[in-house]
Amino acid sequence: MLKNVSVTDDGRTVELVWNDDHRARFHAVWLRDNALDDKTRSPGNGQRLITILDIPADTNIAQAAVVNGDLSVRFAPENKTVSFPSAWLRANAYDRARTAELGWIGEGVAPWDKQTMQNSVPRSSYTAATHDPAVLKGWLSAVRTYGFAVMDGLPTESGSLCRIVDLFGYVRETNYGRWFEVRAEVNPNNLAFTNLGLQAHTDNPYRDPVPTLQILACLENTVEGGESSVVDGFAVAKALQRENPEAFRLLSSWPARFEYAGTSDVRLRSKRPMIELGPDGQMLAIRFNNRSLAPAVDVPFEDMPAYYAAYRRFAELIEDPRFEVTFKLEPGQAFIVDNTRVMHARKEFSGTGKRWLQGCYTDKDGLLSTLAAIEETRKEAAE
Amino acid sequence: MLKNVSVTDDGRTVELVWNDDHRARFHAVWLRDNALDDKTRSPGNGQRLITILDIPADTNIAQAAVVNGDLSVRFAPENKTVSFPSAWLRANAYDRARTAELGWIGEGVAPWDKQTMQNSVPRSSYTAATHDPAVLKGWLSAVRTYGFAVMDGLPTESGSLCRIVDLFGYVRETNYGRWFEVRAEVNPNNLAFTNLGLQAHTDNPYRDPVPTLQILACLENTVEGGESSVVDGFAVAKALQRENPEAFRLLSSWPARFEYAGTSDVRLRSKRPMIELGPDGQMLAIRFNNRSLAPAVDVPFEDMPAYYAAYRRFAELIEDPRFEVTFKLEPGQAFIVDNTRVMHARKEFSGTGKRWLQGCYTDKDGLLSTLAAIEETRKEAAE
Repeated sequence: MLKNVSVTDDGRTVELVWNDDHRARFHAVWLRDNALDDKTRSPGNGQRLITILDIPADTNIAQAAVVNGDLSVRFAPENKTVSFPSAWLRANAYDRARTAELGWIGEGVAPWDKQTMQNSVPRSSYTAATHDPAVLKGWLSAVRTYGFAVMDGLPTESGSLCRIVDLFGYVRETNYGRWFEVRAEVNPNNLAFTNLGLQAHTDNPYRDPVPTLQILACLENTVEGGESSVVDGFAVAKALQRENPEAFRLLSSWPARFEYAGTSDVRLRSKRPMIELGPDGQMLAIRFNNRSLAPAVDVPFEDMPAYYAAYRRFAELIEDPRFEVTFKLEPGQAFIVDNTRVMHARKEFSGTGKRWLQGCYTDKDGLLSTLAAIEETRKEAAE
Repeated sequence: MLKNVSVTDDGRTVELVWNDDHRARFHAVWLRDNALDDKTRSPGNGQRLITILDIPADTNIAQAAVVNGDLSVRFAPENKTVSFPSAWLRANAYDRARTAELGWIGEGVAPWDKQTMQNSVPRSSYTAATHDPAVLKGWLSAVRTYGFAVMDGLPTESGSLCRIVDLFGYVRETNYGRWFEVRAEVNPNNLAFTNLGLQAHTDNPYRDPVPTLQILACLENTVEGGESSVVDGFAVAKALQRENPEAFRLLSSWPARFEYAGTSDVRLRSKRPMIELGPDGQMLAIRFNNRSLAPAVDVPFEDMPAYYAAYRRFAELIEDPRFEVTFKLEPGQAFIVDNTRVMHARKEFSGTGKRWLQGCYTDKDGLLSTLAAIEETRKEAAE
């Protein structure tokens, strides 16, 4: 609930005070552009009906009042009165302190390491996730928070990994197909299709846009070795930054290059940094893959030795057992990783058995949207 | 052809001189990491077989020589000799001057406006593109260079727009389906499905990753109005920067927010700037959509007036006819836009006729990969 509003700076701003004495200022043009009335926003779909050019450049606040705890504003020169709910204003207040930390971690994202995660790997049963929205919500929420989760009890039939995608989104088809086989092959066009160990990596960094989620599902696993492991790239990047801020700065300031040309009809190339930050410094994505890393041609000559030292140290930390969470997939088990954050690895395998996994890609927009919609529905139901 | 090599800085670097007196230095660790021998890179698929941690930290060059115009290097302490082709070194040289220009435009990308583009819209026939790799190459190349192209002669049957995608990549399925109908509807969940004009915009900025390519195909168009137009967002952003560098800086330095909640099961949200730059300042993407722009909550209070003024001026320039290329789609015609660069708009329409378009999304990685593979094949054939 608001308790007071003052019009300030000749009507260019208002200053609001809530019942708990929280204060925030807003600009007239910002309020006008974000007005919630049905001439500004479509009541049906919430989309804005006007453009910024429909708003007079000299928009100001002629009058403002607290009405039933909410804000009522009359804009000049339009002479248009609009009401803004107190809670909406509080949620969208931009008059606040900001972190200046490079690589700050977004709200609701919790970095982890072996100690905090090995014995609390998020997992759900496929059947429960299918039938109980609360279970699905928990599982999707784990992906948002930790960047990975395990799913048990998937049918052990080819292609069933796509059923996990159906719970929240859409398969991202690529040159590898809607899904692809991960098993040892003769003459593989990708080292993933051998029995070699694979260093912890993100998948397909040579693709832009990179697939933001990956699922790996197990159909058969009777080999010796071949365990899967995951590493939180955000946690490792922050560890690198703590011990050497300059190393973190170099890996986030210069693009790396990635390339894949496994068959004659594919020449995938990208140019993105190993540690991607938003313009406001937020940690956005990790790209790390020794197999497809192409020559670094964007790093200035003078910075190259320090850049390579940073890359080496980042790799060492990624291999450090204190960050690694390991598990062996059994048939009917799958795991999902946020491919912009969590690296996955597999141990070398051998023996007389078979290791047959299938993999596919999908995207975070669908997952986060489905999760937000479930959260909203359940909140409304609870209210 | 190389003519000389000197080992410098105690073996940490080499300096090369080509026959044309071009010079470039390389670091030992960079050369070692990018060695092309079959122990370092898989001969079959070109992927790197080693990690940075397999390379000794004290790697240096014990000996270097020009052999048949190429570089031969012996690395210590591994005592490993590797050859680097002269042309490969020249192509991957990183010892070079770099632009310090904010928002520099990548190689092979040509900004355009109405004057340079209205009478030279890139177009191909679907049949020709299907049968002649040179035609397909030309069309794909236009998308890479100009960010849009028209295709004629598509079968006027539902879903045929996906056949264009089949030429180079894969459909990005979303909550709108593999493809979606664009026609006036009663109770539309999106303003695109009305007869309203739509300001020039990029599609789905509320999605992350954003769909990087969009195709719109016409099945029927007998209304008055409803013309399509395209605007080069890179050209407009550079125009904004020329007249007001601070406006450009603000729109690229602070994230915008986008949101779409057209139906109860969809809550798509993103946080990305209107003008996205790479860490090295390269212009990467434009996001602009008045309908789905959510409240700007990341811009500091002090910067908000200037940020809004920059947004307003960017919108004015986007609407400036000197940037707008207009055409009316006939049945069997489609156009593709690079949705990270080129905005599209449509005029309001009315009349007794029908306007029936279909749209779908796909991604640039597939298009650029297919183009690069065709270019390589044709180059090899020519040689």
